[in-house]
Amino acid sequence: MTSQITMTVLPDFPLVKPGDDIAGLILDAAQRAGIELADGDVLAVAQKIVSKAEGRLVNLSQVAPGARAQEVAAATAKDPRVVELILRESDEISRMRPGVLIVRHRLGFTSANAGIDRSNVAQEGEDETVLLLPVDPDASAKAIRQEVSRRTGHVVAVLITDSHGRPFRLGTVGVAIGTAGMPALWDRRGESDLFGYALQHTEVAVADEIAAAAGLLMGQAAEAAPVILVRGLALPRQEGSAADLLRSKEKDLYR
Amino acid sequence: MTSQITMTVLPDFPLVKPGDDIAGLILDAAQRAGIELADGDVLAVAQKIVSKAEGRLVNLSQVAPGARAQEVAAATAKDPRVVELILRESDEISRMRPGVLIVRHRLGFTSANAGIDRSNVAQEGEDETVLLLPVDPDASAKAIRQEVSRRTGHVVAVLITDSHGRPFRLGTVGVAIGTAGMPALWDRRGESDLFGYALQHTEVAVADEIAAAAGLLMGQAAEAAPVILVRGLALPRQEGSAADLLRSKEKDLYR
Repeated sequence: MTSQITMTVLPDFPLVKPGDDIAGLILDAAQRAGIELADGDVLAVAQKIVSKAEGRLVNLSQVAPGARAQEVAAATAKDPRVVELILRESDEISRMRPGVLIVRHRLGFTSANAGIDRSNVAQEGEDETVLLLPVDPDASAKAIRQEVSRRTGHVVAVLITDSHGRPFRLGTVGVAIGTAGMPALWDRRGESDLFGYALQHTEVAVADEIAAAAGLLMGQAAEAAPVILVRGLALPRQEGSAADLLRSKEKDLYR
Repeated sequence: MTSQITMTVLPDFPLVKPGDDIAGLILDAAQRAGIELADGDVLAVAQKIVSKAEGRLVNLSQVAPGARAQEVAAATAKDPRVVELILRESDEISRMRPGVLIVRHRLGFTSANAGIDRSNVAQEGEDETVLLLPVDPDASAKAIRQEVSRRTGHVVAVLITDSHGRPFRLGTVGVAIGTAGMPALWDRRGESDLFGYALQHTEVAVADEIAAAAGLLMGQAAEAAPVILVRGLALPRQEGSAADLLRSKEKDLYR
């Protein structure tokens, strides 16, 4: 049984630009720090650097808000161009009021502003840009994983993390929006005799717990420490997807 | 800046009985493992052992369900005696349907079955018992912290953790239901220029992130590894309360 987990920042990670090779940057950073990757390692990677490498920056001067975006922008007191992008990235609006726009993202999770963020990107003038989430974070995780495994010969897992707010509870926590090489949801039914609401109590959102743990080191200024090496986890060798963490409408009592 | 966090199980933790001294058991377990506590250490303690030490076991044979409990038990297909305890522990029912009873606990958080659990307690016959949450987990954390500090001379933080399900997302994650000697919510506004829903994005639920991290080692069979030593966190020296993590009704769009 696992008795110790270590989480280590890959230090001096460079600023990431569109087209960059994240796997290569990870291996370079590990090498500079004298860290050799090993089988069973988990790499938690902040969404922002994946999005940047994939060129998901959008210049707001090139966004023409439609009628619906204008309406929602008026209701939420937000920039209509950003609202246009949020709506394009979303399947439906979950809640809105002045200052708040929570949507069901096309990837299936529910979050503020469809994960679109202005932080750590240019803020003003002609270059005013925002950053969208990766098109397919599970695929991004898989690509990084395959490249790391190919170059090192080690079997690692990769997860792409973001920070989400939550109903009922204040503050953001790290969550997994993409996973590769590990289960996202760990079915532990049978391991203990639990009462009631059994499914909820016996499936552990292990990818979200790892993302939250990594969030302790990434902080919110994720640019500084965008990759955390997590070592010592004893996960079953199962392939999962971040989609496994999403409640279907039918199982969700809080839509 | 912190660059590494280690999380270590305090091994061979004994079974806890009503009246046990949790701080003493923690120090004994640490000593047996050759671990010396240090300033800045955080001890994540599973709710179950705190509840047991505080004698929060209830024998179901001594519970007489009232009329309301009978109604709710019929609607949820649950044991009326357990429902009676859930209602006593709660301020209001949040959602119910067959197999599901989610309440707003008297402590303020929203969770299934008011955190009442049959796992790892006697299951059948005359001794059928369930375990309620601690009466005041912040006070429990504070008492453990003070006793550990008194006996070791080191300034540590303590959090009491439980596993909760969540709206929108499947699987349980560790959350903090009691804290002492650390902030529960870490206000990082000003550290980055974030867009929109600013409050949510810049306050980090650091106690919940630690609880989730500890959950990776506690597993669901919390009896096996109920105390995790977390070392290497660079938290501000602030005193917080688990209540800081609770959204007020006014700020919650999902009631």
